[in-house]
Amino acid sequence: MSQYRVLIDANDEKGLVYKVSTIFFEMNLNILSNSEFVDKENNKFFMRSVVDGDINKAELMASLKKALPKNSGIKVIEPKKKNIIILATKELHALGDILIRHESGELEANILAVISNYDSLESLVGKFNIPYLTVSHENLERPEHEAKIMEKIDSFKDLDYIVLAKYMRILTPNFVEAYEDKIINIHHSFLPAFIGANPYKQAYDRGVKIIGATAHFVNNNLDEGPIIAQEIKHVDHAYGWKDMQRSGRDVEKIVLSRALKLALEDRIFVYANKTVIF
Amino acid sequence: MSQYRVLIDANDEKGLVYKVSTIFFEMNLNILSNSEFVDKENNKFFMRSVVDGDINKAELMASLKKALPKNSGIKVIEPKKKNIIILATKELHALGDILIRHESGELEANILAVISNYDSLESLVGKFNIPYLTVSHENLERPEHEAKIMEKIDSFKDLDYIVLAKYMRILTPNFVEAYEDKIINIHHSFLPAFIGANPYKQAYDRGVKIIGATAHFVNNNLDEGPIIAQEIKHVDHAYGWKDMQRSGRDVEKIVLSRALKLALEDRIFVYANKTVIF
Amino acid sequence: MSQYRVLIDANDEKGLVYKVSTIFFEMNLNILSNSEFVDKENNKFFMRSVVDGDINKAELMASLKKALPKNSGIKVIEPKKKNIIILATKELHALGDILIRHESGELEANILAVISNYDSLESLVGKFNIPYLTVSHENLERPEHEAKIMEKIDSFKDLDYIVLAKYMRILTPNFVEAYEDKIINIHHSFLPAFIGANPYKQAYDRGVKIIGATAHFVNNNLDEGPIIAQEIKHVDHAYGWKDMQRSGRDVEKIVLSRALKLALEDRIFVYANKTVIF
Amino acid sequence: MSQYRVLIDANDEKGLVYKVSTIFFEMNLNILSNSEFVDKENNKFFMRSVVDGDINKAELMASLKKALPKNSGIKVIEPKKKNIIILATKELHALGDILIRHESGELEANILAVISNYDSLESLVGKFNIPYLTVSHENLERPEHEAKIMEKIDSFKDLDYIVLAKYMRILTPNFVEAYEDKIINIHHSFLPAFIGANPYKQAYDRGVKIIGATAHFVNNNLDEGPIIAQEIKHVDHAYGWKDMQRSGRDVEKIVLSRALKLALEDRIFVYANKTVIF
Repeated sequence: MSQYRVLIDANDEKGLVYKVSTIFFEMNLNILSNSEFVDKENNKFFMRSVVDGDINKAELMASLKKALPKNSGIKVIEPKKKNIIILATKELHALGDILIRHESGELEANILAVISNYDSLESLVGKFNIPYLTVSHENLERPEHEAKIMEKIDSFKDLDYIVLAKYMRILTPNFVEAYEDKIINIHHSFLPAFIGANPYKQAYDRGVKIIGATAHFVNNNLDEGPIIAQEIKHVDHAYGWKDMQRSGRDVEKIVLSRALKLALEDRIFVYANKTVIF
Repeated sequence: MSQYRVLIDANDEKGLVYKVSTIFFEMNLNILSNSEFVDKENNKFFMRSVVDGDINKAELMASLKKALPKNSGIKVIEPKKKNIIILATKELHALGDILIRHESGELEANILAVISNYDSLESLVGKFNIPYLTVSHENLERPEHEAKIMEKIDSFKDLDYIVLAKYMRILTPNFVEAYEDKIINIHHSFLPAFIGANPYKQAYDRGVKIIGATAHFVNNNLDEGPIIAQEIKHVDHAYGWKDMQRSGRDVEKIVLSRALKLALEDRIFVYANKTVIF
Repeated sequence: MSQYRVLIDANDEKGLVYKVSTIFFEMNLNILSNSEFVDKENNKFFMRSVVDGDINKAELMASLKKALPKNSGIKVIEPKKKNIIILATKELHALGDILIRHESGELEANILAVISNYDSLESLVGKFNIPYLTVSHENLERPEHEAKIMEKIDSFKDLDYIVLAKYMRILTPNFVEAYEDKIINIHHSFLPAFIGANPYKQAYDRGVKIIGATAHFVNNNLDEGPIIAQEIKHVDHAYGWKDMQRSGRDVEKIVLSRALKLALEDRIFVYANKTVIF
Repeated sequence: MSQYRVLIDANDEKGLVYKVSTIFFEMNLNILSNSEFVDKENNKFFMRSVVDGDINKAELMASLKKALPKNSGIKVIEPKKKNIIILATKELHALGDILIRHESGELEANILAVISNYDSLESLVGKFNIPYLTVSHENLERPEHEAKIMEKIDSFKDLDYIVLAKYMRILTPNFVEAYEDKIINIHHSFLPAFIGANPYKQAYDRGVKIIGATAHFVNNNLDEGPIIAQEIKHVDHAYGWKDMQRSGRDVEKIVLSRALKLALEDRIFVYANKTVIF
């Protein structure tokens, strides 16, 4: 008896649930959980089922493919630890939160390496017996620096996700395209407010009463990729921008870890620069 | 083409989704939304589908009945305004919020009457051309008083829900049983904390940093019925208990209206003194 | 024995608290509450004290003026109901919330009138015996329309605040300047995100996971005035933009009423396009 | 130039702010921040000022003592790292969060040791070069076990706080009295709901829609000490009690760390089984 996560996105039409549930029924699969959503505006159908049973995975895949509309997205995934690489710069909180979760065993992930443009976090990461690779950006053009990082990344096999745990360098389109839909970033503002540099300073200058953080997939428009999770914190006039920054870190780390968990559990569909999350 | 809300609760077994979706498919029904939940601990299956199509309602009902396990709960509901009666005492905010929503047309409900043990709210309710019935409890034993209220309630036909919008009298088992699963109350605390009288005073005395409100169905154990919705608000040492009370009113009215909306849209299953809400 | 709200903003220097508290002490005033804040970046001091005692108000004012730095802002206010005019368009929820609070007596305000460019809300406002003035914008240039509204507004005396309860027309600089620091608006987004038209549609298109509302004073940069209060609500992929709009109304009305309350209680300082709120 | 935190609690009377600010003024101290609160019900005055200047600390203390009512609580504290000992059992998240904050330097504390009744966390704590002391409770009566722990604790000097980071053993009155007002606990429920064992199971059984966590000082009534901080998280019917537990951990760790920070910054007054927090 194995468990499978079945993810389907298709152009919507009558009978999709019927077709899928018929296949599950005929293959004697037990539905552990089932979520559906129809985006009526775009006529798109999304479904995520967790099933268990004693089946041939390829056969299930084939049956679904045959039954569903052409061009449907179909995934049949056996739950196992995914491989992630973390990029960071100097800040410790978001990386630290992931390391502790990893240590506790709650994270369905192997951390292949932490890569940074500084060596500030080496001591921390070293404690956890995880490879720490410093790739300094000094005296390098951005493409050169990225090429070096990509070389490091590509030295690991079967990478599933790159997590930007407060990696403070802008990525080039070249990098982003190389790891499409695989890069998860935490932006330290409630997007789309305060795109760009030093959002806490921007928030302070604007006099907001709430700060926030946004985890999103990275695409080629900086800070404009599909949003996965957001959270906020109330502030008041007594918060200088450094207080906002300090206080915002708790929000950042929780939101990033939440987004990572959703990704590791195969709960996210990306569509039309948005996410559908079950 | 009519719309139907189909609500099913059944003992869980393999193939339920298959069976229901087969019926929908064969009757040429379009699924607008679909939610399922399996309570594994109790082996119970819950499903709420909104479908549209050109069908005979009794036929759909019969097909479902035939396909599903015995003793399943099956409802096929055509959306229409439900009939509600509001009980209140002297406080205006929760009642007022419902009246304004009713006036705006957002509430899928007819307000048959407002009944109170005081006449304090008559002027407000009168503005909206809704019958206001004062049933004073003075010089009456509780059962006598309730009998009078029940007489008023029962003079209206086709009642769907009784909404206790800060009705500050304890109901007897007799009353509760007469309107089982039909009475929605707002309790001015984050249940199960501060059951009983003056929860804000209790919360103040305990020195809590968060206050809350809980909307729930009323059963015979006071403040212990199935919870529908809860919301909270941060407070600090500067809040006296009257400040908590004042400030808590905003939470109370929003939570009660939210719970009422869920009930009017047939989104709530009650089971094992809990709610499943789609 | 009368109560006074004393509001001071001054360039910061050593001894300000000492000077003010000395005056209070010598005039035998009892401090009921006291809040201070120093904006170190701008070297500004803010203080709000509520005191009671049997004094001559002008004398207190004179003493403070003498003791504090030149160009200090000093207000000594006796609490009483303030006069407000509400501008609305067609939506009922924010206006309705204020009307109900007014009816309950919790609002320290007289509502002089409700002015709208439509007559849609006349029936509601009429119930509460508050003047409703329709000033249609049809066939009028913006300045002409505003001139008519300003004429109506100016026919009332001693106006304290203008509340824009979802008034959906852009105000000209002429209007804004005429009522500087007196206009409170509710914007239906979490500013500065989604400035401009139809923020819920913008939020939906961006795929946010949180929506919000912002109450702010209106200045000449549309949606960029000093923020008074903000609140948010979590949403997910299942919310179409109309669901966000519907659901956002609860946030809007609560935030607007909260901001109005703060203004009526003289708790807000405006400075450097921000607010200090005690 | 040194910085001082001045904490005063006194029976309220006219002129207290005047007296304190006069002393600050005469000693040429600069007020960096100032917070006051009067509990009118209990006629108690609380004040926390952060001042800087070039003074003799004992002289300031003496002046305050002379000026303020007898039996006033007066503290003049120079900010420095406080000494803490952490007690834990097997769960990693709350301890891990504190270790990471300590590592990042954001915590104004030295962690003298982590003490546990199991060795499960030794590997984690060891990474950070912090002493880990296992004191097994096996085959020991509670008083014997506690005596051993107290011996360990008392082997360290100048202890400021004991942090119970999910220490799952009930403390005896003897222990609590030995470290009065020094023990900070995180309870994994929204107190006073779900006192006692397995609050997530209790919350699940009750069918709540919100879970929470409460940081509080420990006194002799289990789970009834003065509350420092509380936070919550929305849940729904799909959360089994283990989901609540998992999900609640994020709330627990954030709340405990927040409470610890408040204590380390000398922001908490304890009074009448409540806290006043500036």
